[in-house]
Amino acid sequence: MGLIGCGTVGSGVLEILHRRGDDLARLLSRPLRVTRIVVRDPARPRHHLAGLLSTGVELSADPQRVTRAPGIDLVVEVAGGTEGPRQWMLDAFRHGRDVVTANKATLATHGAELFAAAREQGRCIFYEASVAAAIPIVEMLQNGLVANQMTRISAILNGTCNYILTRMELDGMEYPQALAEAQAKGFAEADPTLDISGGDSAHKLALLAGIVMRSHVPVEKIYTEGLGNITRDDIQFAAQFNCRIKMLALAKRNEHGAWELRVHPTLIQRDEILAQVRDEFNAIHLKGDAAGPMLAYGKGAGALPTASSVVADIVRAAKGERGLFNSHAGTLPEIIPTEKVELRHYVRMAVLDVPGVLGRITSFFGLRHISISSIHQPEAHMGHPVPIVLVTHKTQDKVVTDALRDLENAKLLLRAPTRIRIEE
Amino acid sequence: MGLIGCGTVGSGVLEILHRRGDDLARLLSRPLRVTRIVVRDPARPRHHLAGLLSTGVELSADPQRVTRAPGIDLVVEVAGGTEGPRQWMLDAFRHGRDVVTANKATLATHGAELFAAAREQGRCIFYEASVAAAIPIVEMLQNGLVANQMTRISAILNGTCNYILTRMELDGMEYPQALAEAQAKGFAEADPTLDISGGDSAHKLALLAGIVMRSHVPVEKIYTEGLGNITRDDIQFAAQFNCRIKMLALAKRNEHGAWELRVHPTLIQRDEILAQVRDEFNAIHLKGDAAGPMLAYGKGAGALPTASSVVADIVRAAKGERGLFNSHAGTLPEIIPTEKVELRHYVRMAVLDVPGVLGRITSFFGLRHISISSIHQPEAHMGHPVPIVLVTHKTQDKVVTDALRDLENAKLLLRAPTRIRIEE
Repeated sequence: MGLIGCGTVGSGVLEILHRRGDDLARLLSRPLRVTRIVVRDPARPRHHLAGLLSTGVELSADPQRVTRAPGIDLVVEVAGGTEGPRQWMLDAFRHGRDVVTANKATLATHGAELFAAAREQGRCIFYEASVAAAIPIVEMLQNGLVANQMTRISAILNGTCNYILTRMELDGMEYPQALAEAQAKGFAEADPTLDISGGDSAHKLALLAGIVMRSHVPVEKIYTEGLGNITRDDIQFAAQFNCRIKMLALAKRNEHGAWELRVHPTLIQRDEILAQVRDEFNAIHLKGDAAGPMLAYGKGAGALPTASSVVADIVRAAKGERGLFNSHAGTLPEIIPTEKVELRHYVRMAVLDVPGVLGRITSFFGLRHISISSIHQPEAHMGHPVPIVLVTHKTQDKVVTDALRDLENAKLLLRAPTRIRIEE
Repeated sequence: MGLIGCGTVGSGVLEILHRRGDDLARLLSRPLRVTRIVVRDPARPRHHLAGLLSTGVELSADPQRVTRAPGIDLVVEVAGGTEGPRQWMLDAFRHGRDVVTANKATLATHGAELFAAAREQGRCIFYEASVAAAIPIVEMLQNGLVANQMTRISAILNGTCNYILTRMELDGMEYPQALAEAQAKGFAEADPTLDISGGDSAHKLALLAGIVMRSHVPVEKIYTEGLGNITRDDIQFAAQFNCRIKMLALAKRNEHGAWELRVHPTLIQRDEILAQVRDEFNAIHLKGDAAGPMLAYGKGAGALPTASSVVADIVRAAKGERGLFNSHAGTLPEIIPTEKVELRHYVRMAVLDVPGVLGRITSFFGLRHISISSIHQPEAHMGHPVPIVLVTHKTQDKVVTDALRDLENAKLLLRAPTRIRIEE
């Protein structure tokens, strides 16, 4: 096989293939060998590869040495980026090679083209490592739960967001401080935009939902909202409602077969199992019509956890597993726009504590027939800023959006309100 | 394919194949068809099979119609029993057929013979449904985590035991009442011996450990202790130590590659994720050297959850997956006898509250150099029975066993003491 990319994950793959090599060779009745590695700069000294290179492994800067030059059966793409991997994968399929990839962004963006190309050429894409690193959730949905009509996925798919929310809750940090710590500990990228915007979770949800819907799910179909507005105050108010805030990726099927697809900060009950997931861990809660509820929990990032799934895919390919060629050939079911979804909402507003302000605020909700289930306003000093927190009964998303826009236009609030959706 | 057995699980398999048939046929590019069903009494009226039988499905009492008569590629064994299934599977392999089974007892007892026979004939045994019903834990260990040296399995594998323990804790029931309720609700068999003795958990642990050790694990190698001595008092004392009692199946590897294999009631910290598993649910906590810690949680029993995994295996076989023929060809690693394992222990004794009794009791532990980390004795009336509960520091299992035997021999206790091992 040939490796494209030899950064953190690629090095992890080589490490596992080295230390588990004997066991895997026994299981497969033949050794697994990396014979070519493609890197950006082959001239750069790579001490950790010295052993491999001395056994005749070829290092080059030319991806075609792996995707089309003779002598390679499997292309392992762990390079990152989007356009490059897209072209390498297409080239690999055209040249009769299967592909293992950890690249969620490429699959979520170009999945329709890539899955179709693989199908036409009779090739396979193995992508276990692209969602929730070590957790074999792709396999669970493709194989273990294949006999089910799945009706729900609710998942913590981004370790950075979960780490930040955990620090904010347990250590009372504000968001910028928690983000800085996540970066210092290597859980967040130097540019964390894709993580905290919810974009990374949306990429992963698109891949999981695609398996369940038997169709490519364009990432644009997923309503996505980032973490940036959540404050320590929200986390403390959530605790008063016996809730935690988690960055959830949700796919929910209604009885007519239409789906909601959303990624956003979410209030969930503290005794729910997803609420127990701390730090950089990932977890996926599933519901199937035969299997019932199910949860998988584990490390969602890191060199070895990701490489664990890449090597699992390499073994699958070596065993000759062919996947299900029609797994993405279906039509996309109806996607329900999030503005039409009915949920309970948490709303936090900052106002000046002047007589009658609470009544004026609630009247904006009443005008739109939004029923309020509880309201909290801490003791404050007349004329000073005070937070007001309310929780609505089930209300259509757009109606809450409209009420909040009216409130902002009326200049009653000191700053933009924070709205967090509640999942039961 | 042919089905042997058409009870709860078999009917569930037929139901899923019916309602998901179109989807599975699309995925596989061909329909999945049951053409023969073997039952004990074909003459018995079976209304739920009327539709199937009208399409020409053959009902017979002869297993060889499925294991060797022409026209069958896959044998699905969901009959139960041990010796019958063993012979049918061997016959199926000899006649070039793969086998799907949900039969943990047969595999745990005759696994060495069956896996060797399958290997010799180049056939596969698919047995996802035999452990933890709906949870695809066999696949996770065989495929998703194949790149790992697994170092630990700790699992709740018996829904009946977990249901009983949950009722005892949440509803304050005593053991016989909780067992009766489990039977009334259909979670426990009319003869629950195999469940509550730990035998069923041991069967399942043997199968999981076998995958991890690449060898057949004889069930006799697993130290097994049942649930029968646990009382409501134990559950309440456990709560005082911030613990819960769970029936755990444990496989732990030390740094020299030797393993502990145990099934017994276990005290675990309440904030551990396994402690959150309620009612009839199963959960498996794993640790791998690359993947890190992982948990899978779901329904461990029931017709449809079990059939979900049986059908997943049928799809695997239909895709032509070949498994790993050498997966059970390795040598069994060293198994550490439980009496040599060092653990903390919870001990509950009943004594008469007379002056000096506590000192005399503790002296039996002191004589064997057992260090006690805490001791509880509720307020009592002089001359009346009172429980004494103590928790030891880490002590070799046999040393605690010996001290408890001495205590019993000394006639200090009103009845046999209860010892529960503690897992950190």
